[in-house]
Order: sequence, then C-alpha cells, then structure tokens
Amino acid sequence: MQRVKYSAYLDKIQSPEKAAILIKNHHILGVSGFTKAGDSKAVLPQVAKRALFEDLKVTVMSGASLGYNTDADLAKNGALYKRMPFQADPTLRKSINNHEVLYVDQHLGQTADMFQKIDKFKIDIAIIEAVSITEEGYIVPTTSIGNSPIFAENADKIIIEINTTFPESLEGIHDVKVLKKQPNREVIPVLESDTRIGDPFIKIDPAKVVAVVYTELPDSPAVIAAPDEKTKAISEHILKFLENEVEEGRLTESLLPLQAGIGKTANAILSGFTNSKFKNLTMYSEVLQDSTFELFDSGKLLFASASSMTVTEGCSKKVFSNFEAYKDKLLLRPQNISNAAEVINRLGVIGINTAIEVDIYGNVNSTHIAGTKMMNGIGGSGDFARNGYLSIFACPSMSKEGRISHVVPMVSHTDHSEHDVDILVTEQGLADLRGLAPIERARVVIENCAHPEYKAQLLEYFEDAYKLGGHTPHSLEKAFAWHMQLKTEGTMKVKDYACNEIEVKA
Amino acid sequence: MQRVKYSAYLDKIQSPEKAAILIKNHHILGVSGFTKAGDSKAVLPQVAKRALFEDLKVTVMSGASLGYNTDADLAKNGALYKRMPFQADPTLRKSINNHEVLYVDQHLGQTADMFQKIDKFKIDIAIIEAVSITEEGYIVPTTSIGNSPIFAENADKIIIEINTTFPESLEGIHDVKVLKKQPNREVIPVLESDTRIGDPFIKIDPAKVVAVVYTELPDSPAVIAAPDEKTKAISEHILKFLENEVEEGRLTESLLPLQAGIGKTANAILSGFTNSKFKNLTMYSEVLQDSTFELFDSGKLLFASASSMTVTEGCSKKVFSNFEAYKDKLLLRPQNISNAAEVINRLGVIGINTAIEVDIYGNVNSTHIAGTKMMNGIGGSGDFARNGYLSIFACPSMSKEGRISHVVPMVSHTDHSEHDVDILVTEQGLADLRGLAPIERARVVIENCAHPEYKAQLLEYFEDAYKLGGHTPHSLEKAFAWHMQLKTEGTMKVKDYACNEIEVKA
Ligand SMILES: CC(C)(COP(=O)(O)OP(=O)(O)OC[C@H]1O[C@@H](n2cnc3c(N)ncnc32)[C@H](O)[C@@H]1OP(=O)(O)O)[C@@H](O)C(=O)NCCC(=O)NCCS
Ligand SMILES: CC(C)(COP(=O)(O)OP(=O)(O)OC[C@H]1O[C@@H](n2cnc3c(N)ncnc32)[C@H](O)[C@@H]1OP(=O)(O)O)[C@@H](O)C(=O)NCCC(=O)NCCS
Repeated sequence: MQRVKYSAYLDKIQSPEKAAILIKNHHILGVSGFTKAGDSKAVLPQVAKRALFEDLKVTVMSGASLGYNTDADLAKNGALYKRMPFQADPTLRKSINNHEVLYVDQHLGQTADMFQKIDKFKIDIAIIEAVSITEEGYIVPTTSIGNSPIFAENADKIIIEINTTFPESLEGIHDVKVLKKQPNREVIPVLESDTRIGDPFIKIDPAKVVAVVYTELPDSPAVIAAPDEKTKAISEHILKFLENEVEEGRLTESLLPLQAGIGKTANAILSGFTNSKFKNLTMYSEVLQDSTFELFDSGKLLFASASSMTVTEGCSKKVFSNFEAYKDKLLLRPQNISNAAEVINRLGVIGINTAIEVDIYGNVNSTHIAGTKMMNGIGGSGDFARNGYLSIFACPSMSKEGRISHVVPMVSHTDHSEHDVDILVTEQGLADLRGLAPIERARVVIENCAHPEYKAQLLEYFEDAYKLGGHTPHSLEKAFAWHMQLKTEGTMKVKDYACNEIEVKA
Repeated sequence: MQRVKYSAYLDKIQSPEKAAILIKNHHILGVSGFTKAGDSKAVLPQVAKRALFEDLKVTVMSGASLGYNTDADLAKNGALYKRMPFQADPTLRKSINNHEVLYVDQHLGQTADMFQKIDKFKIDIAIIEAVSITEEGYIVPTTSIGNSPIFAENADKIIIEINTTFPESLEGIHDVKVLKKQPNREVIPVLESDTRIGDPFIKIDPAKVVAVVYTELPDSPAVIAAPDEKTKAISEHILKFLENEVEEGRLTESLLPLQAGIGKTANAILSGFTNSKFKNLTMYSEVLQDSTFELFDSGKLLFASASSMTVTEGCSKKVFSNFEAYKDKLLLRPQNISNAAEVINRLGVIGINTAIEVDIYGNVNSTHIAGTKMMNGIGGSGDFARNGYLSIFACPSMSKEGRISHVVPMVSHTDHSEHDVDILVTEQGLADLRGLAPIERARVVIENCAHPEYKAQLLEYFEDAYKLGGHTPHSLEKAFAWHMQLKTEGTMKVKDYACNEIEVKA
C-alpha cells in the first residue's frame, strides 16, 4: 500500500472490473499509453470484455499506440466509436479501414491543444497508469507520459492504475508541465535535451479520482527484428552522410539531438551510431527503443529525452534491474513538449523517420497503403520533419520480391510534402534534396534511391512527364498506374495498361 | 545626402548601372523584397537589361515576390538560373513551368535557416533597399524586411538602394533580430503581436558595402479587385463561424491574432471584420494589405505585425501622407520571425489562407494547377496552417463558368494535408473539420462547400470509393479523372471516361 502516499485514495482502491463499471456507453476516455508503454493494462481491457455483453461504445484517446491486444479487443468487440490520435494494431487497423471505427489521425504534438478548441471531446474519464502516488495525491507515471497530463486536466473523473511491476525508482525521470491556453501560452523554456521545466509528477485534482486499481502486468514488450542487410545499408548511408557534414564543418561530432521513429529500420539506424565516429550524442525524440540503451552502454550517448520508453523484454530486464545506471540520463515529457515545434526547431533536431513510399519529387507517404488503407498514423513524424534541422526519411527501395517499388512516380497519399523532406534514403543510397528544384530532385532520387529493377521505369515516367512541362512534371493519367497495376496484376513492374503506354522494361 | 548618416559610405554612391556591374555570371544574389514591397528597384532590373547582351545567369533569393516586372524581365531575358523562395509573376511562372528557370519553393519562415545547412548558397551580393543609413552604417529598411538580415549576414558584399520616396519616419517600425544557429538557437521571446525583440535597423558589417545607389521609385502598387458576391459570402461565413466560437466561449471578442494571405479573397475576408462585432483585434501576419488600414481606421484593430506592407496606390497615399497616425500600431519583422512556428503557436494565430483546390478529405493544394504547373508557391501558408490555433482555407466552390470545381475528389498536389486544415470555406458555406475522421469530413465538405452543380458528382465519387473501403476512401483510377477531363474536354463536369464509369449528372 505504500505506493499510494495519499490516504484519501485508500478507500478508492478496488478491482479493475469494478472500476470499469464507471465507464458508460458513449463515454470519452483519455488513457495513458504511448507506443505500448505505460498504458492502461487493467481497466481498459475490461471495457472490451463488457462490450461483448452490453451496449458499450466509447471514444478512446491515448498518447499513441496501446499494448497487448487492448486496441484489438476493443475493436473486435465493437467497443470503439472513435479512436485518436495514433494506433498500430492490425485488428483495429482493419476496423478503421472497414469503417467500423472512426479514426482521427493527428500530429502527436497537437492533440493536447485540441481540448481548448473543441468542446465535444470533453473527457468523461481519464485512466492513467502510475508507479506511485505522491503525498499530495499526484500521479507519478510509469514508462510514458503521452497526453496524460492534459487528459487529467480535462477529465471529469480519473481512474489510476498503480503498476507494481515497475520500480518506484522511476520517480524522478518525468518532467511534466501543462501549457496554458492561448493567448496566455508561455515560452517552452527547453534549451537542451536535458532541460527540466516542470514537476516529476502529474498534478491532478484529487477530488476527481474515483478509483485506484492495482496491476502488475509489465508493458507489452517491443518486438524488433534484428538489423538485416537492408536496414544496415540504410544506416551506413546515413552515417556516411552525417560524417561528411561533420568533415565539411556544418555539424560537429556530437551532431545535434537525434530523433528516430519506431520500428526495425529506425532502431537499426540508431544502433549504427554505436560503432560510429560520433560522440557525446543526445536524443530529443518521442520514443526510446533498445538502441538508445545500446548507445548509453557504448558511451556514445549522453542524454535522451522522449515521451516514452518502448523496449524489448531483454532490454527491459537490463534497464530495470539496474535502473540507477540510466536514470540520470533519461527524461520523459508530455508529448506536446517532446514534439513541440518550438523546441524541435530551437534544438535543431535531426529527425529520422520511416516511409511507406516516397515519390521522385521527395513527397512522403507515411500512412496510407495505396492511398486509402490506414497503416498506423502520422504519429510524430510531421512534428519532427517540419521543424527540425534535418528531416530524413528512410524505406527499402523495393519489397515483396520486387513486386512493390517504394519509390513511385507520385505518392498515393501525401503526409510530408517536398518542403519537409531533406534527405531520402534506401538501401540503394541517399539523396540530399536540400535546395533542389523538383526536376533536380527527381534525377537524384531515381539515381540514388530507386532499386535498379525500377530505375528505367521511373526514368521513363519522369521523362515523359517532363515533356508535358510543369514545375513538378506529372502525367496524371499515369501517376497511379503502378499502384493500380499492383492491385490488378500483383506487381508494379510495368508491362501494359488500359490507360497508358509505358512499356515493359526487361 | 542626409539619409546616409555614415560617412564612409559617401564615396560608394554610384549609379545603379555601375553598381550592377559588380554582379557577375553565376552569382548568387540575396535581395530585399516581400510581396512587391521594399524590393530592389534600381540595381536588380539592371541585371535583366545586361542579360540581353552578355552571359549573365544568376540565382536570385528574395523575401517573397518582387515588384514591377523585375522577375518577368529577369526570366524573359534568361538572367535566372535558380529562383527562391517565392514568386508570383506570370512570365517567370511560365519560365519555371517550361524548365527554363529552376524554382525552389520554400516555407517562407524556413529560408533563413538554409544558410547554415547548405554551403552552395553562399551569397555573393545582397541588394537591400533602405530608407536611410544609421550613423553606424546600419540599414533602415523600407516597407519590408523579409530575408534581408540573413542575406546581409551571409553575403560577401552588400549593395544598398536608398529609396527617397518613402518618408524617413519609417524608421522605428522595424524590429530586427538574427537568430543564432543551432545548437545555440535562443528562445524567440515574442509574447504578443507588438513585442519588440531586436533593433530598428539591420546590423551589417559596413566593410561589406560596395555600392550605395539612390532611387525614388515607389513600391509597385498592389492591385486588388474589390470584394464581390463570392468573396463577401466567404467573409460572412467566416465571421459567423467566429462569432459562434465567441458565443460558445471558446474565443473572446478580440479573438486571437489574425493572419491573412494575400489577394482578393483574403483582403475581402479581413475587410469584413470592419463591420463585425469583434473588437481590439490584433494581427500577426506576413503581409499587411489595404484591409489592415481599413481596420485601423475603423478602430477595430489595435496592432499589426508582419514582414511587409503591400498596399494599393490609394492606400499608400493615405498611409504615407499621415504615417504618424499608424506608426505606433505597426511592426515589421524578418520573415523567419513573422512566420516562426514557435511564435505562431504561442500566440495562437488564426490563419486564413487561399487554396487553388481542396479535396473532400480536407487536403489543400495551394500551388500546382492540375498537379504540375506552379502558380506562385506555398509562401507562408504552411507556417500558419501547421502552427496556429486555427487553420482556415478559402476558395470559390467553382470557377470558369462552372467548368472547374475547386472541391475535387483528390487534390492533384498536396501542400497542406488534412492534419493542417481545420476549416474549409467557399461562398457556399463552411466546413468545420476539427476532430472528424476522413469519412466524416467528406460528407460535411460536400454538403457545405461544394457547388450544387458538383455535389452529386462528388457524392457519387465518395460513395463508390467508400464501398472499396479504406480510412480515406479513394478509387485511384478515378481520383484525377476530373482534372484529366478538364484538359481534354474543357470541363470537370463528368460525362464519360476512357478509364472509369462515372456517369453524367443531370
Ligand atoms: C511508415 C511505417 C508504416 C513504416 O514502418 P515499417 O515497419 O518500417 O514499414 P514496412 O516496410 O515493414 O511496412 C510497410 C508495409 O507496407 C507495404 N507497402 C508499401 N507500399 C505498398 C503499396 N504501394 N501497396 C501495398 N503494400 C505496400 C510494404 O510491403 C510493407 O508490407 P509488410 O508489412 O507486409 O512487409 C511506420 O514507420 C509508420 O507507421 N510511420 C508513421 C508514424 C511515424 O513515423 N512516427 C514517428 C515516430 S514513432
Ligand atoms: C492559392 C492562390 C493561387 C489563390 O489565389 P487567388 O488569386 O485567390 O486564386 P484564383 O482562384 O484567382 O486563382 C486560381 C486560378 O487557378 C485556376 N484553377 C483552379 N483550379 C484549376 C484547375 N484544376 N485547372 C486549371 N485551373 C485551375 C482558377 O480558375 C483561377 O484561374 P484565373 O486566375 O484564370 O481565374 C494564392 O492564394 C497563393 O498563391 N497561395 C499560396 C501562397 C500563400 O498562401 N501565401 C500565404 C500568404 S501570402
């Protein structure tokens, strides 16, 4: 009981099942959780269970994706009316794409500001995971902060999940500040990755707390494929590029704070820094993966700031069994501060994110397969790509045994326009697009990034379109022909179309 | 001579023709000028003239568009290799679209940061218009600041154009600060539209000044069509929407600082505020048009901050003949501060910009006709749309006697994705897209914004695509069919296609 140091909460302690009864049909819930870290593991899953037996459809707002099968079960059991601002679950994805769940995909740095603008998202109940409760009744979060502070502020009621699997020594790694509404918005005075500007807990109104539950489920572990040939090649291209920037005096050996997206590619890229010439690195990111801890262990990384820690089972053991070794090098922030345009620009973050597909002019699709089907969401990629010092997007040049080219004539959906993309990189090579006009960009993207099996085909598209003129040459008839052919014939390799005359390349 | 208070410059005074000889083939020029205001009127036109007789091709960077026919003459005479970050000239536009001039279209707030990242844009000569020179040899700019401070800092040499047509009393309306490079970037401490953070002049190294010329050409006047039925209707929809926000307590009568794009629509919208219920308004914008001064005259507007003043001949007379009446209500800033993400977010700017076309999911095309031909450029629209409190985009629902629908199934080029667009408005009505999923957005955009002549056709596209599934339903075969038909048959009104089966709507 000693994790709850505020005695007035003691008689609120109850089972997750009982606490979940407070959640009613049509409720709007704001839940903790960011890329599977620090999410509601006890109460929210009960909503999914109840939805099997009663009319229970809720709106769920989170930091980012949730762990285990929470999103899957909510979706499968019909418990979700609306979901925002991010998800990454295959079952929920299917429900979104079938129009069973409404999904509002948002820049992760911007959800917090929504509450002052839209009344209809007034939160009925916030569910927030805590490692402990302070003497004032405030929440010490676990492995993520996400949107929890703004949810708590805007909620009528709060349910707290005390998770005893995390060491209480997590207390101290959080830095929480709730920004004022405009026109009273203040400067966000983060001047370095490690600047502290707030409290090590989430200040809440204790009167809002209606239930406290206990759980000991750990975060669902990240599952990250080991670096392979392709992701290693991508990592090497980026390191070589950055080394050259240092040689030419535009950056120093400690670079600028790094941000890396989530997943295999981003993790492999960061791991690559372990054996690089760089030193005294820092991170100002939204998620920390295994590679962050590898970099700490190698002595390359001085400090990392993010909104969550999402690590594999092995890494989790390493970190939490020896937490004091990492504690003073880590800081977790609310996501509207980890992803604040103001701070990302001031610090000059180097943003490294992953694309579903890119086009020859440098536009990036991060979210929609074939322009229509939601994959995960834009996440924080836009916050970093728009505002950082350098915006890098990586993807394989080709996949599915060559049936899909990730470099296409025109992206089927635009998340990041050419204005927000400095560098494109695939295992084939890297294109530095800074200061180039679209027709210059096309040549370097095709030359450096496309897979040899698709180069001729891309060049032919570009040259045909070029003849038609235009700052950004396109032939609208053919712009999506490859995507269409993938659907009808299972490959983007061109042979013959109803609507165009591109010919097969041997 | 008393406009030049720094005696070491006196023997640098020469004719524009002679000063222009300093400009060599392949030079990179950084010139003052933002939406026709405060541009180089004497020296830069000489480059165009000389290019008729000699090999002279230069890169021209400016704040934004230039006045008179400077861009046209440079383009026509083949004097331009590369142009950035914005233009709005029909002749230059043609050269860009014919691939005779390379154009790098940038977020106007971001050009300044390019110099620390790319060596190849080291400026050979900066040409900056001044109303006077201080005793230290510093430049007091005229009607715009744009990128002049960063150009002066990064230039080898500087040519100053003293323009005696402007009253010396312009001195004092400028607030100039050059931001440090990352990782030493400081907080931009603008807390209100009227916060001063710098100097009333551009600090330069006087040793760089190689020529001073005199001119008395006024800025090319803005030519703005008077509000018509359509732009008045758009303005009314916006005012009604904002009034409702005040009624419901989300905004106060003084709203939040306003930004408005340039052109007839934006000017008409702002003019509409003159007879509104709002009071004590402020502006934090990039350009001030006639409507700003109407708002001052009506007592509605307290203060306006921007990077330039671009007014009609009549308005110019009114303002400059009585400048003291406006002076303490105005502030001009460098464009990386007028358009700084940090400040726009902190102040909570309400951004009102114009679109070429919008799609049913809320994506906006601001730049490319039919996805290929550059119109002007993205300008500052992205800086405001991404970071402000509210992002409004306006356009007519239809043009060219109904042959073009400005609401289309899929924008042919994406400048602002659905994430950056809160409100779409046409003369038909206004769609509040905040917090809506794409399939919800589509219904409200079609219902509220589309022209009745195109509603059925849009709905049919949406409903057909909806059946195919997907978070953002599209049928890639048909997404650009309207644009293609406009090209082949002169109208977007659907009858019959080679590649799809959409049918004629009566
Ligand atoms: C873009 C993103 C989905 C890439 O993730 P990833 O795991 O590296 O990407 P993958 O290449 O494995 O996945 C893309 C899939 O789409 C498929 N794909 C790509 N283009 C396709 C197309 N035109 N048609 C059909 N499938 C396509 C790929 O083949 C691959 O399929 P697979 O999973 O069956 O192998 C992911 O990074 C993301 O969601 N990003 C947005 C959020 C973000 O950037 N956040 C910032 C930091 S957290
Ligand atoms: C978007 C922008 C071009 C609109 O300007 P505008 O003068 O209000 O727009 P108009 O409707 O008059 O011009 C658009 C033209 O494109 C045409 N057009 C639109 N869609 C078209 C299509 N699919 N095919 C062909 N023509 C099309 C219109 O018919 C119109 O033609 P016209 O000039 O012959 O009448 C202008 O606001 C701009 O350049 N914006 C970007 C920069 C910016 O926003 N800066 C921020 C503040 S300065």
